[in-house]
Amino acid sequence: MVGATLGSKLVQIGHEVKMGSRSANNEKAVEWAQNNGAHASYGTFADAATFGEVVFNCTGGTVSLAALTLAGAGNLKGKVLVDVANPLDFSKGMPPTLSVCNTDSLGEQIQRAFPHVKVVKALNTMNCKVMVEPSLVPGQHDVFVCANDSQAKAKVVDILKSFGWSSIVDLGDITAARGTEMVLPIWMRLWGLSQNRPFNFRIAR
Amino acid sequence: MVGATLGSKLVQIGHEVKMGSRSANNEKAVEWAQNNGAHASYGTFADAATFGEVVFNCTGGTVSLAALTLAGAGNLKGKVLVDVANPLDFSKGMPPTLSVCNTDSLGEQIQRAFPHVKVVKALNTMNCKVMVEPSLVPGQHDVFVCANDSQAKAKVVDILKSFGWSSIVDLGDITAARGTEMVLPIWMRLWGLSQNRPFNFRIAR
Repeated sequence: MVGATLGSKLVQIGHEVKMGSRSANNEKAVEWAQNNGAHASYGTFADAATFGEVVFNCTGGTVSLAALTLAGAGNLKGKVLVDVANPLDFSKGMPPTLSVCNTDSLGEQIQRAFPHVKVVKALNTMNCKVMVEPSLVPGQHDVFVCANDSQAKAKVVDILKSFGWSSIVDLGDITAARGTEMVLPIWMRLWGLSQNRPFNFRIAR
Repeated sequence: MVGATLGSKLVQIGHEVKMGSRSANNEKAVEWAQNNGAHASYGTFADAATFGEVVFNCTGGTVSLAALTLAGAGNLKGKVLVDVANPLDFSKGMPPTLSVCNTDSLGEQIQRAFPHVKVVKALNTMNCKVMVEPSLVPGQHDVFVCANDSQAKAKVVDILKSFGWSSIVDLGDITAARGTEMVLPIWMRLWGLSQNRPFNFRIAR
C-alpha cells in the first residue's frame, strides 16, 4: 500500500516508476501498473533496483534486508535509497514491537549492509496518504530526513518538496533513524485514538 | 533541576512542596527551600513521600526504582505519582540509550513495583522550563498523559492546566509510557539542533 501510494504520486508528477516485487508478475503490481498509465511498470526487486535512479524501500521493515538482498547490491550501487520502512514486528500481537531499536535502527542496518548505497531515511513517521498529500493534515507539520550523504539527502528533499512538503526537518546522519523509527509506538497509540483522522508530528519552536 | 523547576512552580501557584533527596540535608534541596519561601521544605525521599498528596518522580530514570524504594511503598500507598523521568542511560557515552524500552517502559516498571500507587506518566517529553511555562514555545503544542487510574489522570490534568497547558493529549493506560519515553532519541537529536531555542512536540490533526 505504501509503495503503490508513493508510486502513483511519483508517476503523477512526471516520473517513470517500476514497482518491484518478489515475483516478476505480482498480481497487485500488475494491477497497479495497469491503473497508472504508460509511465508505470512492474518487475522483480532486481528489475526495479536496476531501473530506478532513486529507489524507495516500502517493504515491511522486518523483511527489508531480505528484499534488498534480492534487489541486489550491484543493482543498487551508487543509488539513492529512500528508506520508508519501519521495523514493526506484529508476530507477538498488538501493539507491535520494534525488531530493532535503541542502539541501532533499520536505516543504519541497511546502510551497513549496503555501504555503496546512499540511504536516506524519510517519510516513515506518517500514514502513506499524508506522505504524498501533506495538505490532508491542517496547519504546519513536519517530515524528517536523515542520511550520511548530503547530496542524496538534498535530492530527497527536492522530491519531498515536489510532493508538497514545506517543512522538512534535517536530523543529520543516518543514526537519527533510531529517533524517527522509535516514534512508532506513540504513533500507533495516536493512530488508535485518531478515528481515521489524518495526523502528523510537528516540532513547535 | 527538573524537581527544582517543578517544585518552584508548584509553590508559586499555591502548593506546599517538600523536596525529597537521598539524605535529609541535601545541599541543593536546602538551598532550593531557602529560595522558595515558607511553603517550600526538604527532607528524605521518605519524608517527601509521606508529606505529599501528589508525588513527582523527577529522579534520573535509571535510579527511579531505587529512589522510590527509599521513598517507601507504604508512604506512597494510594497516592498519585507523576512520573516525569526518562530511563536515559548516559553510561555508554552520547547519545544516551534507553535502559528500558520497546516491550516495557519505566512508567510500567514503577506501576508494577508499586501497585498501590497511581502512576501518571506526564511531562517527560520536554525540557523542564517548558513543563512549567508552555508559552515559552510559540503556537500550539502538546503534553501527553497516560495512566491506568482515570481519577489520578484527571487530577494531573488539572495540575497541568494550572501550569498553563491547554493541549493535553490523553494516550490511555500506562503502557503508552513506552511511546512517550521512546520519543527521547528524536528529542535528543532535535535538542542538539535547537541552539537552545525551546521546542516541543505537537500532534497536528
